[in-house]
Amino acid sequence: MQRYLQSQYASVLRVIKYQHAVTVALIMCISMLVASLAAQAAELPLVEKQEFQTSNFTTYGGEIIPEVRVGWEAYGELNEAKDNAILITHFFSGNSHAAGRYTAEDAQPGYWDAIIGPGKAIDTNKFYVISVDTLVNQEPTNPNVITTGPATINPETGKPWGLDFPVVTIRDFVNVQKLVIDSLGIEKLHAVIGASMGSLQALDWAAAYPDRVERMISVIGMGEADPWTIASLQQWANPIVNDPNWNDGNYYDGEAPLAGLEQTLGMITLTAMHPLIINQLYADSSAREEAPLRDIRSNFKVVEQLQAAAKLRATYADANHILYLVRANQLFMAGYAENLEKGLENVTAKALFLPATNDLLLQPYLAKRAHDVLLAHGVASEYAEIEGPWGHLDGVFNIQLQADLIQEFLN
Amino acid sequence: MQRYLQSQYASVLRVIKYQHAVTVALIMCISMLVASLAAQAAELPLVEKQEFQTSNFTTYGGEIIPEVRVGWEAYGELNEAKDNAILITHFFSGNSHAAGRYTAEDAQPGYWDAIIGPGKAIDTNKFYVISVDTLVNQEPTNPNVITTGPATINPETGKPWGLDFPVVTIRDFVNVQKLVIDSLGIEKLHAVIGASMGSLQALDWAAAYPDRVERMISVIGMGEADPWTIASLQQWANPIVNDPNWNDGNYYDGEAPLAGLEQTLGMITLTAMHPLIINQLYADSSAREEAPLRDIRSNFKVVEQLQAAAKLRATYADANHILYLVRANQLFMAGYAENLEKGLENVTAKALFLPATNDLLLQPYLAKRAHDVLLAHGVASEYAEIEGPWGHLDGVFNIQLQADLIQEFLN
Repeated sequence: MQRYLQSQYASVLRVIKYQHAVTVALIMCISMLVASLAAQAAELPLVEKQEFQTSNFTTYGGEIIPEVRVGWEAYGELNEAKDNAILITHFFSGNSHAAGRYTAEDAQPGYWDAIIGPGKAIDTNKFYVISVDTLVNQEPTNPNVITTGPATINPETGKPWGLDFPVVTIRDFVNVQKLVIDSLGIEKLHAVIGASMGSLQALDWAAAYPDRVERMISVIGMGEADPWTIASLQQWANPIVNDPNWNDGNYYDGEAPLAGLEQTLGMITLTAMHPLIINQLYADSSAREEAPLRDIRSNFKVVEQLQAAAKLRATYADANHILYLVRANQLFMAGYAENLEKGLENVTAKALFLPATNDLLLQPYLAKRAHDVLLAHGVASEYAEIEGPWGHLDGVFNIQLQADLIQEFLN
Repeated sequence: MQRYLQSQYASVLRVIKYQHAVTVALIMCISMLVASLAAQAAELPLVEKQEFQTSNFTTYGGEIIPEVRVGWEAYGELNEAKDNAILITHFFSGNSHAAGRYTAEDAQPGYWDAIIGPGKAIDTNKFYVISVDTLVNQEPTNPNVITTGPATINPETGKPWGLDFPVVTIRDFVNVQKLVIDSLGIEKLHAVIGASMGSLQALDWAAAYPDRVERMISVIGMGEADPWTIASLQQWANPIVNDPNWNDGNYYDGEAPLAGLEQTLGMITLTAMHPLIINQLYADSSAREEAPLRDIRSNFKVVEQLQAAAKLRATYADANHILYLVRANQLFMAGYAENLEKGLENVTAKALFLPATNDLLLQPYLAKRAHDVLLAHGVASEYAEIEGPWGHLDGVFNIQLQADLIQEFLN
C-alpha cells in the first residue's frame, strides 16, 4: 500500500523533493498546508478499492473480451431513491482513487480530494461519488488498480493478451462504467465529471446515454481529437514502439521496454505542464551549468530530475497499456458520429467546461469548440477557465480555483 | 543538386504533397503564387556555395578543433567602404542558403527569399548579404552544406570525431562567422538577422562584439534557454540516444540510428507548428478513421504523413550533429554571463524582436524578456509579433508579414 505513493500523476509533485530552491520549498509548504487544512475541515472515512467483474464484454469495435475486471471506489452514501450519484471519470495516468485515503498513514489523498468530500464542492454529505478504473489503465501492476488490458492474462491462451487485446475506445470505458452503475441500481447520474481523458468519458456519457446523465463537467477536456492532438499523442507512443525490448508487444516473459517507457512518461510529464511552473520548479537549472558544457554525455539538472521522476512513474506502468490509452484518446469523438455536431446532437445534460488557460496539451480551443456545439444545439452550457501556472495540470492541482462554480453547478 | 530539395526545413512544406484537400491545395497555390510573383519582381543572380577554412579553432569551452571548414553564401555586392554587409544566421535545421537559387531549375529558393533580394526588405541592391553554415550543421552530407562536427574526419585519428568532438556553443558559431567576416575585411556589420537558432547567434553577436554590430533582428528567438526550453529540447535528443544503433555516437562504419533520427525529426516538425496549421494541412485525418480502430498497429493518416516527411528530412541529417545542436541551444545565454542582464549589458546595436504570436516552441515571452532587458539597459529595442497559423514556423514562412518593419528598421 505504501508503495502506492510512488505512482499516479501525483508523482509529478514529487519531483519537488529534488528541489532545494526557496521558491519550491514555499510552493510545497503552501500546498501541504492547504491540503492539511482541507483534510482537517472535512476528512472522508478510509477508502477501499472494490472490484467489478463482467464477462463477454463487446467493444465499440465489435470484439469480445471474455473477462473484464475493473476496480472502483465510492465516497458518501447512495440514497434510497438512488438519484444522488456522481460519477468521476479519471485521466490518462490516473485511476479511480479520486479522493480520500486508504490508510490513516497515507501521505497523499486521491487526486481531487480538494473538491470531493464532506462539505466540499462535490459534497459527499449529499452525493454518492463513484469512480471506476478504466480498461487498459496505465498501471496494471499498481496494487490499487484493477484493470483489464494487454498485460492481463487472456483466458483462452493462459498468457498475457499483448497486442491481441482489441483496440478499445473511450466509449468502452463508458460502457464498463455503465455496467457498474447498472449493477448498483442507479438509473440516473446526478453528474458525470472528469479531467482530461476523464472529460472525454464525461462528455461521451452525455452523448451516448442522455437519459442517464443530468449534468456533465468537462475539466481540461476536448470534444474530439483533431489531427494536431492525434499527432501529439503519437509522440507518447513512439518511444515505446521504437524500443527493441517492446518486441511488438511481447515482452511479458522477457525484458520490458523500460527505456522507451521512461522516455514516454517523461514526455507526458513535460507536455502536461507550462513553462511557468517548470521554470519555477527547476529554477536551480540553467543554461550556464558547467557539466553539459564540458561533456556531451552530461545532462542539465532539469533533465536529470525529470528523468528521475519518469523512472518513479514507470514503477507500475505498462508500455502496451499506454499504447492502448494513446489510441483510445486518438480515436475520440464524443458520440462517435461522423462529426462533433452529430455526435453531440442528443445531449440534454447541463454542461460545464473548465479548460485551463495555460494548457499546452489540450488547449482551451478544444473545450470551447464542444461548448459552442452544445450551445448551438440549445443545450445549457457554461464555460470558464482555470488560470494557473501548471498548464494542463491546473485541472488537477488547481481545481479548487473553480470549486465554487462546480458546487453551484451541481446544486 | 536536385536531391537538395529533399532536405531542410522546407521539407515541412513538402508534406503538402500528401494532401488532397481543397484547403491545402489553395494554401500551396497561394504560396507558390506569392513566391513566383516575388521571384519575377526581383530575382537574385544564381547563388554559389563557397567554402571557408580555418585551423586550430578554440571553442568557448576551451577545446581546440584543428581543422574547421564551413560553407557560406552571399547575395549583392560588398561596397568599397565595406560597410553595407548584413549577416543572416540560420536556424536549427537550416543552412546558409537564405535566398536565391543554385540553378535556374531549382524549384525552391533559399528560405528567406521573400525578404532577401533586389528591392526586397533586405535589399541586395543596397546590401551585401552573407550567411554561413554553422558548426555541427544538421545535414553534414547535404551536398550544399559544408560543416565541421562529429561526422567530420578527425585529422588526428583519420576517423569521424563522434562524441570526441568538443561541445560547441552558439558563441562558437558566432566566432566562426567572425573569422569569415574578418577574412572579407568587413569591420562593421550593418545588421545581424536570424530566425530561431539564428536569432540566438544574432543576439550573441550584439553582446559579444558590440563594436561590430549596428543592428540586430531576432526572429522567433530567445535571450537565454530557460529550464523549460532546456527540457523541451532534450525531447529531441532522447529518441537518438535511446536508439541502440546510436551506439554512444559510434555508428559511422555501421548502421545509423535511423529510427531514432526519424522520430526526432518528426518531433521537431510537429513542435515547430501550431494546431491551426496542422489541422488545416491534415484535415483529411480524423478520430473517425477506421484502420486505427481495427488494428493497434495501424496509424492515423496524419501520423503516417508526418512519418513520411520525417523520413525525407532524414536524408542528409546526422544524429550526432543533432545532439550537438540541441546542446548548443540548451547552453545558450546571450553574452554568456552569469545572467541575461549581465550578458546583454554591453549591447549597443539597435534591436528588433519579432516573435510569432502562436509559437509553442520558443514562446513570445522569451523574446519579450530579452527585449525588456535591453530596454532597461537603455538600448533602442523594438518588439512586434508575427501573427499566423504556423506557430514557430511563422518566422520562416510568414516573415514577409513584417517585411515593411524590417526594411524600415534597416534604413
